[in-house]
Order: sequence, then structure tokens, then C-alpha cells
Amino acid sequence: MEATLNFEEKDWLACCGSTKFAKEMASASPFSSLDQAVSAARDIWFNKVDVNGWLEAFAAHPQIGQSSAPAAASHAASEWSKGEQSTAISTASTSILQELADWNARYRQKFGFIFLIFASGRSSGEILVELKKRYENRPIVEFEIAAQEQMKVTELRLAKLFATRTRSAATEDR
Amino acid sequence: MEATLNFEEKDWLACCGSTKFAKEMASASPFSSLDQAVSAARDIWFNKVDVNGWLEAFAAHPQIGQSSAPAAASHAASEWSKGEQSTAISTASTSILQELADWNARYRQKFGFIFLIFASGRSSGEILVELKKRYENRPIVEFEIAAQEQMKVTELRLAKLFATRTRSAATEDR
Repeated sequence: MEATLNFEEKDWLACCGSTKFAKEMASASPFSSLDQAVSAARDIWFNKVDVNGWLEAFAAHPQIGQSSAPAAASHAASEWSKGEQSTAISTASTSILQELADWNARYRQKFGFIFLIFASGRSSGEILVELKKRYENRPIVEFEIAAQEQMKVTELRLAKLFATRTRSAATEDR
Repeated sequence: MEATLNFEEKDWLACCGSTKFAKEMASASPFSSLDQAVSAARDIWFNKVDVNGWLEAFAAHPQIGQSSAPAAASHAASEWSKGEQSTAISTASTSILQELADWNARYRQKFGFIFLIFASGRSSGEILVELKKRYENRPIVEFEIAAQEQMKVTELRLAKLFATRTRSAATEDR
């Protein structure tokens, strides 16, 4: 028996912190598969969420190298964020964390939003190299790159969300 | 004798309503010519003003087809805006102004900022066609187009600003 994959607005918001995104995902629900949800999510994120919504989603992330998400972030988003950054944190020396913090501050000063990167599996050294490279970009170019990174994070979180629900549905089926 | 072309932050702000833009122009002053000022303005607008600054500048414009600028706009910006839209207003029937207002609302709903176009010399019919075409764009694409239109408006206003000052300097020289 196939599990009914129905989620609430707050579940979608934990995947991507734009309220427009979460509302549109709720409207497009239910999805018959993860693939279908990812496809809808990509369309909504790139074609329907406006630039203010992108900024809202970026603001829901903790800064890379910091463990705590903003107060507005949900518990699920906060826990997922820790998992996504676990390689970066475990490979980091104190001096590299300090350098990351300094460059994050410079980045935010230039672009007006935090540095966003799909961090899963990346060491803090790799992230720092990427941050310095991206710092050179024009603001509008960097804005679109950040949105693409956000989408990668969203896809991973959608997979986690669906995995949880499929597991719990399987448990109920027993 | 060459006129000293020195302006204040509020003069630059009347050309483009981003405070970052105005501050950077003030820092880069004085300019020996309009060309030099335009060149600095382009660099500042596209490379230094972040996406929040772009949104701030967009918000300082009146909606096309409306005569009054937002309360925050300066007297100079408000007068210039009227001049820039004079062709559009004089060629507009009531029904086309209504259609412009409707499409402006739809545009703002989709993109989160007002429709911006270099209106000088354009009829309201031409502007409406352009609005409908641009409405189909992805938000990030439209965001960059709007920034390019803003730069055209800024260049025209810089020319007006320099023209005023050169005239008054010439008067003093007599």
C-alpha cells in the first residue's frame, strides 16, 4: 500500500524558509512521489517566488560555521542544518572557523545576505575557498548563485522529509 | 573657467534612491565631467549596490501612470519623474490608464516591486505592451532588467543635475 504523502505548510517551510514557497507547495500537494515534489519545488522557487522571498529564505539559515539557526527557524530546519554542516564543522580548526567568520562578515557586508552553500560533505577549507571566490562576484550574479545553492539544500531536505514520512507510514502499516 | 561640479548626498539620492549609491557617489566626488560621473554611477550601481539597495531605489519611484512619488522621494526626484512620464501621460486615454494601473498591480503582485521603465518619450500604449511582455519573465530576470532601466533613468537625471549646476555657475561667472 502506497503511503499518503501529505504535508503541512510548516513542513515545506522547514525545507525552504520562504512563506510563498511553503504556501505554493501546500497548494500543489499532495505529491505522489519525491520526484514530483522536487519538480514542483524547482518551478515554484525559480519562477514564482520573488526576490523578497529569496531573501526571506536566505535569512532563515544559520551562518556557515555557526551552530544555531535564527530564532525564526523551525526545530526541523535547525537540526537539518546541523547535519548538513557536520563535515565542515568536524574538519575545522579554530583558526579556520575564525577565518570563515571574518569572510562571512565581509560577504554579508557586500551582498546584504548570508553566504549560502550546499555544505553537505564539504570541508571547511573547501567552503572558505569557495566563499573567497564568490566574494568577487557582482551582487546580482551572487544572488542567483545563492538561490541555486538554496535549491540544492531544499532538494536534500525534501528527500529527508519524504524519507521520514515513508518510514513512519511503513511502521503504521505493520 | 571650469565650474566646480560638487554635489551633496541628497543630489545623488534624487538621481537614484539607494542610500548606498548616494554615499558612494559622494565619496567618489568631485567629478570633472558628466561622463566621469556617469561612469562612476554605473560601476557603483551594478557592482557595489546590493540587491536590497536595488529594491530601495525601485521603491523611490512613483508607479507609471501615477503622478505622485512616494512620500520619501525628494522634490527634485518627484519633478523629474513627472517630466519623464509626460509623453506617457499626455498620450493616455482614461481606459489605457486604467489598464496600466491593473497591470501595474499584477506586476507588483508577481515581482514584489513596481514596474520600472525608462519612460521618456514613450507613449502609454508602448509602455503597456512592454509591461505585458516583461510580466512573463522569471523574477530574477525581471529584477536585472528593472535595474538596467533604473540606470537609464539615473543617467538622464545626472545629465539634468549637471546641466542645472553648469547653468547656475555660468550665471555667477557673468
